Amino acid sequence: MKVLNEGEVTLIDSMGNDLAVVQAARISNGAAMPDWRGAPDEKLIRFLAEHQHMTPFEHEVFKFYVRAPIFVVREWQRHRTFSYNERSARYKKLEPEYFYPLMVRVPDPNNKQSSIVKDDKQLAALLKGAFDGAYAAAWTEYERMLEAGVAREVARSVLPLGIYTEMIVTGNFRNWMHWWELRVQADAQYEIQQYALAVGELIESVMPISFKALAVMSKS
Amino acid sequence: MKVLNEGEVTLIDSMGNDLAVVQAARISNGAAMPDWRGAPDEKLIRFLAEHQHMTPFEHEVFKFYVRAPIFVVREWQRHRTFSYNERSARYKKLEPEYFYPLMVRVPDPNNKQSSIVKDDKQLAALLKGAFDGAYAAAWTEYERMLEAGVAREVARSVLPLGIYTEMIVTGNFRNWMHWWELRVQADAQYEIQQYALAVGELIESVMPISFKALAVMSKS
Amino acid sequence: MKVLNEGEVTLIDSMGNDLAVVQAARISNGAAMPDWRGAPDEKLIRFLAEHQHMTPFEHEVFKFYVRAPIFVVREWQRHRTFSYNERSARYKKLEPEYFYPLMVRVPDPNNKQSSIVKDDKQLAALLKGAFDGAYAAAWTEYERMLEAGVAREVARSVLPLGIYTEMIVTGNFRNWMHWWELRVQADAQYEIQQYALAVGELIESVMPISFKALAVMSKS
Amino acid sequence: MKVLNEGEVTLIDSMGNDLAVVQAARISNGAAMPDWRGAPDEKLIRFLAEHQHMTPFEHEVFKFYVRAPIFVVREWQRHRTFSYNERSARYKKLEPEYFYPLMVRVPDPNNKQSSIVKDDKQLAALLKGAFDGAYAAAWTEYERMLEAGVAREVARSVLPLGIYTEMIVTGNFRNWMHWWELRVQADAQYEIQQYALAVGELIESVMPISFKALAVMSKS
Repeated sequence: MKVLNEGEVTLIDSMGNDLAVVQAARISNGAAMPDWRGAPDEKLIRFLAEHQHMTPFEHEVFKFYVRAPIFVVREWQRHRTFSYNERSARYKKLEPEYFYPLMVRVPDPNNKQSSIVKDDKQLAALLKGAFDGAYAAAWTEYERMLEAGVAREVARSVLPLGIYTEMIVTGNFRNWMHWWELRVQADAQYEIQQYALAVGELIESVMPISFKALAVMSKS
Repeated sequence: MKVLNEGEVTLIDSMGNDLAVVQAARISNGAAMPDWRGAPDEKLIRFLAEHQHMTPFEHEVFKFYVRAPIFVVREWQRHRTFSYNERSARYKKLEPEYFYPLMVRVPDPNNKQSSIVKDDKQLAALLKGAFDGAYAAAWTEYERMLEAGVAREVARSVLPLGIYTEMIVTGNFRNWMHWWELRVQADAQYEIQQYALAVGELIESVMPISFKALAVMSKS
Repeated sequence: MKVLNEGEVTLIDSMGNDLAVVQAARISNGAAMPDWRGAPDEKLIRFLAEHQHMTPFEHEVFKFYVRAPIFVVREWQRHRTFSYNERSARYKKLEPEYFYPLMVRVPDPNNKQSSIVKDDKQLAALLKGAFDGAYAAAWTEYERMLEAGVAREVARSVLPLGIYTEMIVTGNFRNWMHWWELRVQADAQYEIQQYALAVGELIESVMPISFKALAVMSKS
Repeated sequence: MKVLNEGEVTLIDSMGNDLAVVQAARISNGAAMPDWRGAPDEKLIRFLAEHQHMTPFEHEVFKFYVRAPIFVVREWQRHRTFSYNERSARYKKLEPEYFYPLMVRVPDPNNKQSSIVKDDKQLAALLKGAFDGAYAAAWTEYERMLEAGVAREVARSVLPLGIYTEMIVTGNFRNWMHWWELRVQADAQYEIQQYALAVGELIESVMPISFKALAVMSKS
């Protein structure tokens, strides 16, 4: 699934589904293992969500491949319940692939921590020129240092926050939904919202009932 | 897999294998997704273990059904990186199924926090009688209270630590191996060692190379 | 602070206060260290709580000594964000100090997972007799085994869930408030509610503004 | 405490000391509260470290103010057991303060993931010129965009990984020592090693016995 200008989110692997939530919840009531078959119980899943019985939502796991600009990954990795493996600029020269916004955004006059889209061709051209100039200068100096023999881990200091990196991220359903709730909302940065939408869509395709049950709770 | 006199460990579900460890490690070096096929790289896995590069061991997940005495579950749940759902004696009357040791153990004269086996038929008979007596008295009073209308969550106060309970436990490979290392060693209580051996055997059957690589490290 | 018939909650140590929340929040906006003095900013603290900006509530820490029945400690230790050290019945013979409820509770006809108080002298007498009988039988067999030389870790199997244990618990303010919210509410067991009320009162005495801000959010 | 060319580590607050470790360990053996006074027991602390009894090292907490380049903070924040609040380039224009290495480093011929110092004046001049050039171009474009009205969260994409940021980091002693062990070792990047050395010195000044006990273990 494509995200932003050069980004990607791919669901590599997963464990469990809506039925696994029901099975985990039922063990609290001592329901025997043979009873664990059949359709997932929608009513029970909604009950769990409404009453904050969250542990049955922890036994289902999703593992994603993500390609995103470093400033997005920086926000993502503040979430401490996931497992991450990210490409290292210490071990490998990065590629000159950069984030460019699809639209220009300016400060939101109603919320000093947020931004709004502005359809302004002159400003768009200025931004394109500024990104091109800064990215090109950084790359030129990065390559010049590597060719002269400077260590990768030192030379990377000049690379911009808008350069793309890639990572594998694994977490359980409960933690993904908590992340989704915080990152899909209006005061999150637009770019990470796009990743949250993509992740949410992929998770919903595997666990539609549980996704809806927790998504509804987070709106209220 | 049977454990102790009435216990059980069953691998319900899992995600990933030795190859997933290699894939996660390789992303650090920027190996592209298409290269991710083929046999797992034993040398790389041993290198990761030896150099404490532990994050590639976090993207593989194991989910177990466990039936164990409460005193074993108490020790188990001190591990805070797993997800648990356990039968609740608040919601459900428990069953009179109890732990009985297969051998008598006495304090270890060389380690005041541990115990050793003693082949003493008289002591075995005393222990059997003591367990029978205490368990029967507890059950009689538990049932008497429930029949008289006392709430389950109050009546359970008299139940013994040796009664069996059941739970679902999910965690990633790295966390399982840390738990296994602490619980399989000689100064862990004999009963939880048996669960660690069972869990270890089931995990090793799915991830033999990684299991050996981390097990070796923990011995050194 | 006394809790239940023989329990206790004592605040041993703490770090930080309402002002520390404000300081942590302000670094996001680049406020310099010298500006970090003065009265805590109530409006900012309420804003953080309302908008789920929770990280500033993590730099304040509370450490408690707790004396509680094992069934309460079992529920408490399901919270995985705290640090625990608990008295071990493997290393030390326990004392015959037991939980007795101050009032009789029966199943709640409106909520099968909960209970309500019933003022019934006959039932109270039956319960007292049942607790006395089961506790005395357990203790007699426990002591008989220890005197005969059985290891403490084996003999403890017969001890009841109502026996008192003690622990030290440390956690940050955010995690304490999450625990408090779940354990003070009506569908938590009455006994752990009492501990939550005691802990809450002690925390509120140190961080009154933040406590109110998060407590209000949890009600809504 | 100064670190690198413009960095800083300051211990803002802490809770507990070597004696707190002993107190937490003793509760396992049922030592009563009144016995909790006196000098910390060095032998017990070393015993805990050698036998991996780590929970007593979790009740002591350290809170630091850190000023570091973004590439250092990126590595730091991969540690998921700490609490962080960092200056946000979404909410606040950053300052043009940049990392410059004190010495030139080149790839280590014996370890492709590491680097070694090279005393080469010509290379040093090239590096200084490359850093100056890339940093200046990035700052020029950043300011040009902000002045033209582009949102801070968009304009920051061009800022380099070598720009300084600041954060508050809080964690318990056990987690700090785990971080210290990984970050002070030879295959960690030189720059984060300097932060680990500074943090270690400040922690050792508060908990000298425990610091030595765990530092020795990590070397073996």
